[in-house]
Amino acid sequence: MIKPQTLKGFRDFLPGEMRKRQYVIDILKSVFESYGFEPLETPALEYEEILLGKYGEEGDKLMYRFKDLGGRKVALRYDQTVPLARVISQYQDKLPLPFKRYQIQPVWRAENPQRGRFREFLQCDIDIVGSNSPYVDAEIIACISKCLDQLGFKTYKILINDRAIFNENYIKTSFDIPINAVPLVFRAIDKIKKIGKDRVQEEFIKSGFTKEQAEEILQKVDEAKPSPALEENIFTALKDLGVSQDKFKFEPTLVRGLDYYTEMVFEVEVEGIDLSIVGGGRYDNLIGIFAGKAIPAVGGSFGFDRLIEAMDQLGLFPADLSTTKALITIFSQELADKSTEIVKRLREENINVELWLDPQVKLEKQLKYADQKGIPYVIIIGPDEASKNEVTVKNLKTGEQKSIPVEKIKEVTK
Amino acid sequence: MIKPQTLKGFRDFLPGEMRKRQYVIDILKSVFESYGFEPLETPALEYEEILLGKYGEEGDKLMYRFKDLGGRKVALRYDQTVPLARVISQYQDKLPLPFKRYQIQPVWRAENPQRGRFREFLQCDIDIVGSNSPYVDAEIIACISKCLDQLGFKTYKILINDRAIFNENYIKTSFDIPINAVPLVFRAIDKIKKIGKDRVQEEFIKSGFTKEQAEEILQKVDEAKPSPALEENIFTALKDLGVSQDKFKFEPTLVRGLDYYTEMVFEVEVEGIDLSIVGGGRYDNLIGIFAGKAIPAVGGSFGFDRLIEAMDQLGLFPADLSTTKALITIFSQELADKSTEIVKRLREENINVELWLDPQVKLEKQLKYADQKGIPYVIIIGPDEASKNEVTVKNLKTGEQKSIPVEKIKEVTK
Repeated sequence: MIKPQTLKGFRDFLPGEMRKRQYVIDILKSVFESYGFEPLETPALEYEEILLGKYGEEGDKLMYRFKDLGGRKVALRYDQTVPLARVISQYQDKLPLPFKRYQIQPVWRAENPQRGRFREFLQCDIDIVGSNSPYVDAEIIACISKCLDQLGFKTYKILINDRAIFNENYIKTSFDIPINAVPLVFRAIDKIKKIGKDRVQEEFIKSGFTKEQAEEILQKVDEAKPSPALEENIFTALKDLGVSQDKFKFEPTLVRGLDYYTEMVFEVEVEGIDLSIVGGGRYDNLIGIFAGKAIPAVGGSFGFDRLIEAMDQLGLFPADLSTTKALITIFSQELADKSTEIVKRLREENINVELWLDPQVKLEKQLKYADQKGIPYVIIIGPDEASKNEVTVKNLKTGEQKSIPVEKIKEVTK
Repeated sequence: MIKPQTLKGFRDFLPGEMRKRQYVIDILKSVFESYGFEPLETPALEYEEILLGKYGEEGDKLMYRFKDLGGRKVALRYDQTVPLARVISQYQDKLPLPFKRYQIQPVWRAENPQRGRFREFLQCDIDIVGSNSPYVDAEIIACISKCLDQLGFKTYKILINDRAIFNENYIKTSFDIPINAVPLVFRAIDKIKKIGKDRVQEEFIKSGFTKEQAEEILQKVDEAKPSPALEENIFTALKDLGVSQDKFKFEPTLVRGLDYYTEMVFEVEVEGIDLSIVGGGRYDNLIGIFAGKAIPAVGGSFGFDRLIEAMDQLGLFPADLSTTKALITIFSQELADKSTEIVKRLREENINVELWLDPQVKLEKQLKYADQKGIPYVIIIGPDEASKNEVTVKNLKTGEQKSIPVEKIKEVTK
């Protein structure tokens, strides 16, 4: 006998979990579309050479790759940005720039599964391709902010930095360090918020910096001011687009993906939540790789599983996500048509109801089923009710039940 | 330079195509939920042993299989029914029966691509697991019928048969043929509607039947009557559930998957469309394979690509599926805030609008962009409009344009 099981790092989403995910996806989609983003989907499998080498050594190692039956080297989607780059180049005649798209699809990475990290997970991205305008940076952030508002987040802050402030050259020449030590500095700066300045200073010294160098770096970070590109252009555009000033702030310690982002980067901090649920920035060197020319781009990406986790933690999901309002029970074979009658009527009024489908099963078991499934109401039509053209409505949460005329069901189950 | 291309049989869905797909998915989901079906998703990758051997030799050959980095034999989802069988057995404590689920996910098959056949395609299934009641058969058909109504299909007929009428034993003994000739008979019967009785009779004779046998088989099919299970139970339940009698009919030549379905089978015939867009039936032997006991089930499955094709052909898509109502242009850097002001306002009123994001670009190019993207309206705020607190609204289809007060935008772009 084969054991029914899923692969490590892969998940089934049963209805309870699916409803949460759909609730979030529906909100995100509707906000994305209200900002003029359009849907895009790309295949799960691509030629390996399209994906390989685009995510660094680590990425190549974690990619699901194999030969298909025709001997082609193929790989499973690893993210949604490289496929976007391919699409931009493959359909340049059809896609007027700027191209604003959203994409919500699973990706696959053979990482070691741990809390909040899976081998199959949903990515949820918006990107605007083809413009250097600071309004593009601002629009991505404004859209993300609107998403968070609509999802119910109250106390969040969008941290924004410009990678051009501490760029490679600046760090290398200011502190007279070899170029290969630069990433070390970035990584240390990125940690300041998490582990504090003192420990970062220790780390600098351990890595071979002098105490003076370490102090100078930390002081420079302290004194850092938004670049003119941030202050005059992006922050102004953000305000123009209606993002209130208490929702975002300059954060010079924010670094994010080293090889990826070129200028503006952002991340969202939510009170009480330790993981970042959404971030992004401007990346002007990636989208053009297949087109053979530089194509600027700004993107934002939700960590979907973290988002769900954060919303659970903060209690942001509505209490009742069951889409089914009521179970219409069947009292007996003879009265089955009374039940189907009610079902037809309610469905015509656009009320989602489930009809119990087996007249042979006892009423008690039908009620238990509704309760297990989290259906809020059951409707019972026995001989008494049938003779009076009434139904009994039972609220499964409160246990309360009453007989009402058929016409009133809609009001009661609201 | 790497050539930007997709694998044969795999497709990108650009926004225009995606909008059609989402339009259909949204309707299907809302009908499914109105019938009490709940969403389920399963992983793209499963242990090979879970999937292998469940689809016959042909299936094993077409399955995408490989070894993952941990040396596990894995395979890509080939359909949604075997994973459902796994889920039913794996979570039996959590899932009260009957379990009604819908599932809309891609599957992968290494078939030879041809018109309407792809290697990655969406499946769109509803199934009810765990009950023998004829109401279950009827509910699946009623739900599918409602989907077709909601999608705009007018002249369709649901063909229904009971595989128990001409079952293996009946055919074998009635016509005194060896058991391995039975599938031949089924396949020939299945062709009657397509190629006509005369040619089917020829085929019978070619396969070694006598002329008398062939005539007798065809006559039996002609004279076939609905089984009592169909006539008295399922057809009655269908009428109870509101499926009008002109929407369905008994069709003794309908066979469908030989090894799969056990009793009721159905398929939908749409006037003017040569491919079947949806079908299904009762299959009582598959869902229990992991649980080690028989678990009855009825399902229906849309051929999603064929459905889209049929709707295109019949003109069932709304003329304007663009979710973006208007492009708000930017006249100049100085007037950019006037445009963002309008955008903020319209988005607050839940109108999906796109803001042009680069003040450096000429108005003409902005208009062209909106036109290419199929956005129905553009809104222009130049110095004149700004001074009068008005905007110019241009209808890109008719070319008509007029200046109106800001408050009137909502009415005009409706």
